[in-house]
Amino acid sequence: MQRARAGDPRAVARLITLVESGDPALPQIAAALGSDAVKAVVIGITGSPGVGKSTTTNELVRAFRKIGRRVGVLAVDPSSPFTGGAILGDRVRMQDHAIDPGVYIRSMSSRGHLGGLAAATPAAVRVLAGAGCDVVLVETVGVGQAEVEIASLADTTLVLLAPGMGDAIQAVKAGILEIADIFVVNKADRDGADATYRDIQGMIALGGGISGTAQETGDNGGRLPGDWRPKVLKASAAKAEGIDAIVEALEEHRAWLERTGELTRRRRQRAAAEIEALALGELRAKFAELPGEGLQALAAEVADGRLDPYAASTRLLDGIL
Amino acid sequence: MQRARAGDPRAVARLITLVESGDPALPQIAAALGSDAVKAVVIGITGSPGVGKSTTTNELVRAFRKIGRRVGVLAVDPSSPFTGGAILGDRVRMQDHAIDPGVYIRSMSSRGHLGGLAAATPAAVRVLAGAGCDVVLVETVGVGQAEVEIASLADTTLVLLAPGMGDAIQAVKAGILEIADIFVVNKADRDGADATYRDIQGMIALGGGISGTAQETGDNGGRLPGDWRPKVLKASAAKAEGIDAIVEALEEHRAWLERTGELTRRRRQRAAAEIEALALGELRAKFAELPGEGLQALAAEVADGRLDPYAASTRLLDGIL
Repeated sequence: MQRARAGDPRAVARLITLVESGDPALPQIAAALGSDAVKAVVIGITGSPGVGKSTTTNELVRAFRKIGRRVGVLAVDPSSPFTGGAILGDRVRMQDHAIDPGVYIRSMSSRGHLGGLAAATPAAVRVLAGAGCDVVLVETVGVGQAEVEIASLADTTLVLLAPGMGDAIQAVKAGILEIADIFVVNKADRDGADATYRDIQGMIALGGGISGTAQETGDNGGRLPGDWRPKVLKASAAKAEGIDAIVEALEEHRAWLERTGELTRRRRQRAAAEIEALALGELRAKFAELPGEGLQALAAEVADGRLDPYAASTRLLDGIL
Repeated sequence: MQRARAGDPRAVARLITLVESGDPALPQIAAALGSDAVKAVVIGITGSPGVGKSTTTNELVRAFRKIGRRVGVLAVDPSSPFTGGAILGDRVRMQDHAIDPGVYIRSMSSRGHLGGLAAATPAAVRVLAGAGCDVVLVETVGVGQAEVEIASLADTTLVLLAPGMGDAIQAVKAGILEIADIFVVNKADRDGADATYRDIQGMIALGGGISGTAQETGDNGGRLPGDWRPKVLKASAAKAEGIDAIVEALEEHRAWLERTGELTRRRRQRAAAEIEALALGELRAKFAELPGEGLQALAAEVADGRLDPYAASTRLLDGIL
């Protein structure tokens, strides 16, 4: 633990493995990390497969290193080079950072963890923050509820799109529009980039994706003066173009978060969700352990029509309370 | 309650409205329904918008009426005629059944209910079964986790596809393949129907979508002798073609469920999930009510780094246990 907090990469790796496997020592680890565990800026990077998430992440790591930040990367993307799904080129490029002591890169799998990645990821973010990372980039594939949940653990969420993939529509479907603080149309030199850019601008103008402490209908498309209107940027991460503008937008969003108190609000909301999930997980384990009148016995009675579900729930709670 | 159990449509309607709004009297209602609440055959009907779910549901209602069954329909589909999204033709056709006392049709919305439709739908199914419906058809749009959950409350799940909509691939993505017992390629007279049919057959042959009490890799694509291999049928519901074959497949699946004990297993699993969801909902409400050391206060401490989430979870549980 001491060595992890001093930034020893092997010690950090071991701790994240414990997090992934849902080790019984997690409460002690969490306690030992102390207040450093919340100090990192957490940035979520999401988007459909093929939009260039790992290339963009790679360039962002480079940009943050240039300004002296220590960077952690958690890749929870099955198509990511970190987890083995991508082409060799990406893999090799990422290895540039692998020998940089100021960069910690880690793929996450959900093996063994009770709550899956949605539970393991915030714990891993705390480990990286505790090990001295100033910035933690969490890269996820932007499809499905689980990924939206993981993205929601970030202070700032960056959604990548690529031209001609129908991504703008997909983004709405998957609920990603609501979680995006910054959109990046990557591969901006390709045909259709302008159309994608306009589509997403149009959707934002229609009032989607506005975050703020309150939402009202007004003259400016539902925004209040203190609201954040999602930024839309263009980039070509493979050519390292447009990266500085992304970093600038990230810092602008950070300043907004702090100025408006939204950072505190988001972090408290996340903390509440995490605490509740841990507590409910504990209770679920207790349900399974109840002797006699356990969940399975009650379920059999309900399935047979001998008991109704509400009465069964009451009996279950009586068993643990 | 007496009148609902006797099948009075207005009394049934009132009960389902109470279910939708999460009325405090739900436990008493559930208790009063007694063992009739589990007697109906529950069939889930799902698929993307535009595949012909309501037309197919309509024809299935007709077919079940012809063989003397009392039928309940719960439409939890925003694009369904019952909830206002479809064309007038469908709406009028469904009204044929509206004057049949052996058919009870109801749309479901999630207004007010704590657990949303996923919580309200099983309760509404019990009301319909308690009111004497032999068959309850639950129609949902097959996109998103919530809909998959709702479909999973059925004994048999029927997934509708239509030619040329890329549905086969979508089905895999959305996790629908895993829940389908019967596939119906609707609009089978259209171009591409054969290709869709072959696609879905191919995916089943690759070992997806096999349900059974155990799954092993074997010579027959992962199936064991007692396993159910999803049926794939073609139909043109708008022309009332292929409906008898669907009813036959539904009864065949029913016989399989009963013969193998899978019906009991599925219903117990569903009952366990429902009981647990009710119990966790109660506990979540208790968390919110805790004085002083309540969830919000603990979340603020965790967000500030003064407390770790595990310690906060323990304190939260100490508050209610």
